[in-house]
Amino acid sequence: MASQRNVVIVGGGFAGLGAARALRSAPVNVTVVDRRNYHLFQPLLYQVATGSLSAGEVAAPLRGILGRQRNTRVLLGEMVDLDPKGKRVRLADGASLEYDSLVIAVGSETSYFGHDGWKDWAPGLKSIDEAVNVRHKILYAFEVAERIADPAQRRAWLTFVIVGGGPTGVELAGAIGEIARQTLRHDFRSIHPEDARIILLDGLPRVLMPFPEDLAQKAHRSLERLGVEIRTGTMVKDVDRDGLQVETGGQSERVEAHTVLWGGGVTMPPVAKTVAARTQAPADRAGRIKVNPDLTVPGYPDIYVVGDLASLAGADGKPLPGLAQVAMQGGAYAAKDIARKARGDARPLPPFAYFDKGTMAVIGRGAAVANVFGVHLSGLAAWLIWAFIHILYLVQFESRVVVFIKWAIQALTFNRSARLITGAAATDFDFSDAVKGSAAVPDLRPTAEARR
Amino acid sequence: MASQRNVVIVGGGFAGLGAARALRSAPVNVTVVDRRNYHLFQPLLYQVATGSLSAGEVAAPLRGILGRQRNTRVLLGEMVDLDPKGKRVRLADGASLEYDSLVIAVGSETSYFGHDGWKDWAPGLKSIDEAVNVRHKILYAFEVAERIADPAQRRAWLTFVIVGGGPTGVELAGAIGEIARQTLRHDFRSIHPEDARIILLDGLPRVLMPFPEDLAQKAHRSLERLGVEIRTGTMVKDVDRDGLQVETGGQSERVEAHTVLWGGGVTMPPVAKTVAARTQAPADRAGRIKVNPDLTVPGYPDIYVVGDLASLAGADGKPLPGLAQVAMQGGAYAAKDIARKARGDARPLPPFAYFDKGTMAVIGRGAAVANVFGVHLSGLAAWLIWAFIHILYLVQFESRVVVFIKWAIQALTFNRSARLITGAAATDFDFSDAVKGSAAVPDLRPTAEARR
Repeated sequence: MASQRNVVIVGGGFAGLGAARALRSAPVNVTVVDRRNYHLFQPLLYQVATGSLSAGEVAAPLRGILGRQRNTRVLLGEMVDLDPKGKRVRLADGASLEYDSLVIAVGSETSYFGHDGWKDWAPGLKSIDEAVNVRHKILYAFEVAERIADPAQRRAWLTFVIVGGGPTGVELAGAIGEIARQTLRHDFRSIHPEDARIILLDGLPRVLMPFPEDLAQKAHRSLERLGVEIRTGTMVKDVDRDGLQVETGGQSERVEAHTVLWGGGVTMPPVAKTVAARTQAPADRAGRIKVNPDLTVPGYPDIYVVGDLASLAGADGKPLPGLAQVAMQGGAYAAKDIARKARGDARPLPPFAYFDKGTMAVIGRGAAVANVFGVHLSGLAAWLIWAFIHILYLVQFESRVVVFIKWAIQALTFNRSARLITGAAATDFDFSDAVKGSAAVPDLRPTAEARR
Repeated sequence: MASQRNVVIVGGGFAGLGAARALRSAPVNVTVVDRRNYHLFQPLLYQVATGSLSAGEVAAPLRGILGRQRNTRVLLGEMVDLDPKGKRVRLADGASLEYDSLVIAVGSETSYFGHDGWKDWAPGLKSIDEAVNVRHKILYAFEVAERIADPAQRRAWLTFVIVGGGPTGVELAGAIGEIARQTLRHDFRSIHPEDARIILLDGLPRVLMPFPEDLAQKAHRSLERLGVEIRTGTMVKDVDRDGLQVETGGQSERVEAHTVLWGGGVTMPPVAKTVAARTQAPADRAGRIKVNPDLTVPGYPDIYVVGDLASLAGADGKPLPGLAQVAMQGGAYAAKDIARKARGDARPLPPFAYFDKGTMAVIGRGAAVANVFGVHLSGLAAWLIWAFIHILYLVQFESRVVVFIKWAIQALTFNRSARLITGAAATDFDFSDAVKGSAAVPDLRPTAEARR
């Protein structure tokens, strides 16, 4: 038996994992490299950030998923360089991997539009650790507000600003609205959580730009019903510890807010530049690598770039969006092409064509918008489809069962059982500073109903 | 209506929460103060550390539990001082709380027997953050071992030492045994996780000292069947980054191990000393406060000390152990006494009597030992009772359902879905250092079954 071709897949996200699984029966040796030991189901990450789900439900260990796939190994590591002529990938720890075919699926990172300092005050939502940090921030804000007597300070702690009106921003804003109005309704004695001010900002003229206008409007109204203030056409000028500076139509305004969450744009990880430099591949403005119609890098038919890092025009001439669906289909396409070559089949595949099954966003309990095969749905119907599809696409059987149960219980009770303040981020906040000097311990409301 | 008495409960663990809930119908104002916003179900914390459960299943937000209890408020804060004459408790943030009755239920901390520096290398298991850290350490060790070629180094990464043969140590050792032999069996290509060396150390002559001898022996055999090496009569002399120094019967030995977990003794938190000093209360050797038979501090009939911090002799003359059961019963007793006084009932309660329902420890799937009302059980019967009781005592309905399902799936598949490497502790380990210089990327085993 001739020695088998080595396939190296960098990244265990939707694109990389999609490629790895599609190669399970191919006559190749597959190596999946990721900085993390788990595959993250990003579309539900905001539910970890808002206390509905635990990390274990939206993330699955890569070894668990791929352990029984005999032609595949998993390595914890980070790609830092590429030698496209020598066909080697170098990892941060100094190791290097030889490949016959390479799939680069490293995904994207949160963009602060050149203001990386804002990150300290406005965390993004790309990893489990960030989600735990965001959860911490949201819940802690209510705790501090409960302890503060000064009305202006209290108001700043009860103001939540979400930057970015895409699906992540909309879903975060909706979830915080529900937390304030429902989950925490009975939990405090000095503040009324429903007084929380939740602001969703976007520089674009409306939320959910990629959605059809009627659905975006419905989402807009659903958010307003949850008490979310929507400010479109608004740019962020600065973010600091105590709030942010925004500009709407030339008018500058200061918003005092201790909780600013970043659902803004994406940028490419540093390794993208290295790949472009080493292969002389063209890149678009966001740093995405422009690939051939078969997802390979120009001049390197054995290097595929898939997922968020790939720049390719769709059937409508517009660049394909950075969505899980695009990534999964791209990964599967690359795998198919690699398997074809491994079998010695010389007939090229038809160019990659993205098949759009639809887009959806959830706003709250029983409220969502969905565009499924061109059919526009909203309300409960959209929510049920959203829930069904998301459970279906979870990788682990166990997560499907558990998420189903947690959503069912939450739909009935509004309880969010995972609203725990944990993580090292605990020390980022100096609770005592915020409270000191103000009348720190509020009185109980009259306990008229205390019996006997 | 006369103004109601203020009851301050410090600590939201088994004792504090037990007291708070028992006061729900009493004509008092209750304030529960805790440093954390959640109640932790400590007996299952080792399952978070070993990837069986997520944090959300073993912890429940205090506000969620007590939110609808109208006479009760929750404050995030830490008690640092006490004025027993002025009847005030001072918090770390400077606030102070007046009380008519005070329940001190601050629990205990992990003791390193005066060697606090060991903590850096041998984390304990008292909080969610520590459990995530321990999980990280265990899983990361296998990842590093997979990347290391040097046999001695690899062996040190695959050596797991658990210090302390009490229930926590036994349960941790059993779970790591199962992870190595079952969960990870198919997951690696260069190492055989079942080669992991798991050592359970204790200075005492046998494991599970508080259990009857026949059950301790059964647990011992079950652990050995899982590949756990048990070293009793062994003292820890030193712990560092790369291993530990132990002594058995005068013989000193070095054990190279990158994963050392601490299930050792308990010590009292710093505030215990303050309480003893301010009230002139006697303390035992471990720093526990010696309380009256009604759990009050001598000379202060309005200050109750309950849970791990209380030192009181049981019916057999021996001090009551630091168990969840003792804490819950103590909290409920204090609440009953407070409610009695609030109602103006002058007849004192009979002294606190601990009712021992039994003790149990789980070793692995279908293997446990239990002493229930004096009946000795082991194997599947003990495991089923253990599982039933633990699910029953979980605070949240949702956790009960989810834990039941997770255990059922795990019993069938050995899968541990929550084996994610997350948390700030990620940066504690320099993976590249461990790997650099050794042949970092191991070969794939022959993929005999790769089809076509």
